[in-house]
Amino acid sequence: MKRTIDVCLTPNLIEQHDLAGKVVLVTDVFRATSCMVAGLATGVKSITPVLEVDECLKLQAQGYLAGGERHAKMIEGFDLDNSPFSYMDEKAKGKDIAMTTTNGTFAINKAKGKADEILVASFSNLTPTAKYLQSIDKDVLVICAGWKGRPGLEDILFAGALVKKLSETHKNEEDSTHLATAAYDDAEDDMVAYLQRASHLKRLKSLAGDDIPYCLIKDQFDVVVHLVGDKLLLKN
Amino acid sequence: MKRTIDVCLTPNLIEQHDLAGKVVLVTDVFRATSCMVAGLATGVKSITPVLEVDECLKLQAQGYLAGGERHAKMIEGFDLDNSPFSYMDEKAKGKDIAMTTTNGTFAINKAKGKADEILVASFSNLTPTAKYLQSIDKDVLVICAGWKGRPGLEDILFAGALVKKLSETHKNEEDSTHLATAAYDDAEDDMVAYLQRASHLKRLKSLAGDDIPYCLIKDQFDVVVHLVGDKLLLKN
Repeated sequence: MKRTIDVCLTPNLIEQHDLAGKVVLVTDVFRATSCMVAGLATGVKSITPVLEVDECLKLQAQGYLAGGERHAKMIEGFDLDNSPFSYMDEKAKGKDIAMTTTNGTFAINKAKGKADEILVASFSNLTPTAKYLQSIDKDVLVICAGWKGRPGLEDILFAGALVKKLSETHKNEEDSTHLATAAYDDAEDDMVAYLQRASHLKRLKSLAGDDIPYCLIKDQFDVVVHLVGDKLLLKN
Repeated sequence: MKRTIDVCLTPNLIEQHDLAGKVVLVTDVFRATSCMVAGLATGVKSITPVLEVDECLKLQAQGYLAGGERHAKMIEGFDLDNSPFSYMDEKAKGKDIAMTTTNGTFAINKAKGKADEILVASFSNLTPTAKYLQSIDKDVLVICAGWKGRPGLEDILFAGALVKKLSETHKNEEDSTHLATAAYDDAEDDMVAYLQRASHLKRLKSLAGDDIPYCLIKDQFDVVVHLVGDKLLLKN
């Protein structure tokens, strides 16, 4: 019997899904999970996703670096913004980071304690993540972080790419998986151009230029990232 | 300044949207709103969408016909199931009908009292509905009824078709409108074949055969259907 893969289009639909016994994978391509993967793959010690700015500042007082954004902008008193380049910077190496973002950390916290395992992933570690999922005998649920509870196209493209990677091993029988793979089929050849064509979309207009093409590059890092307690760590 | 059109992919995301001042259009292609349009266009006097089976039975005791489904099956003691053909039947003509369905009536009731006007529509009255929306100066929100809180492909196809019909008059700037139009672009040439290709989807397997192609035929009826008090009526 094949395992299954399902896609939750926004964290606000998480109640439609039974997470028990599953591996939940959270993706927030622009930009939280792209930051997390890039940082951990290049020497960050751990990343603790938290919901509130205050929690980040408390951890900062204990020696963590504070990173993240509100409304796509850096937060006052923080050490790092929400660009993957910041998480690969020299000053982040070897550090524990506390991170809060509008959508990505919200999605991770929604899943916490309910699933067997929580992964975060982005295009930058698509293939290693897919291989890991194929190596274990569990159903998969992809949670697209979206934007303030609404669907985000780039996260749905990632979900579509993953569903396709797992098509030999994981059944996909839900309408949301079909929407995701159909969108990815359209976008696959040139995701940057695809999103540029969709640039009349209000939300995409506000995003920083360099990060967009960077976050769409596949398989830069041969790592899998998972949540252990409160911390995101590389999986051995 | 152009008006806007936005798409809510399932009724469980309605809290993400401000309905005040808008025209809300509910679609449940398979099959509630297809039934409603077909019935009212062919002589049904009114259709009262209600949430519970008991409410339907109370109205039945007052002389209404009771119609609808639970889990895509006819309800014991009811006069009509959830096939559009039943609502065009001789026995329905001139009658008031109380109707309850898993998704369509749920979506209508979620929007009640919050929007300026509530319409229901399906492919069968796509163009007249689009023309009406172009004739008034209000923003539009399409609510896809989906299936038990999850997205339904056929409703999203309808939303995509409507967004495209209104592209000259209504701005669409949200990721969900893009997903809907992209899906419709793929499906437009032959929606029956498109949904057949998606027939590995669990939900579609359970649907009755004849109703599917029927519910995808465009512009059978030159009517607009709106909610007045508790009743769905033809708009003059």
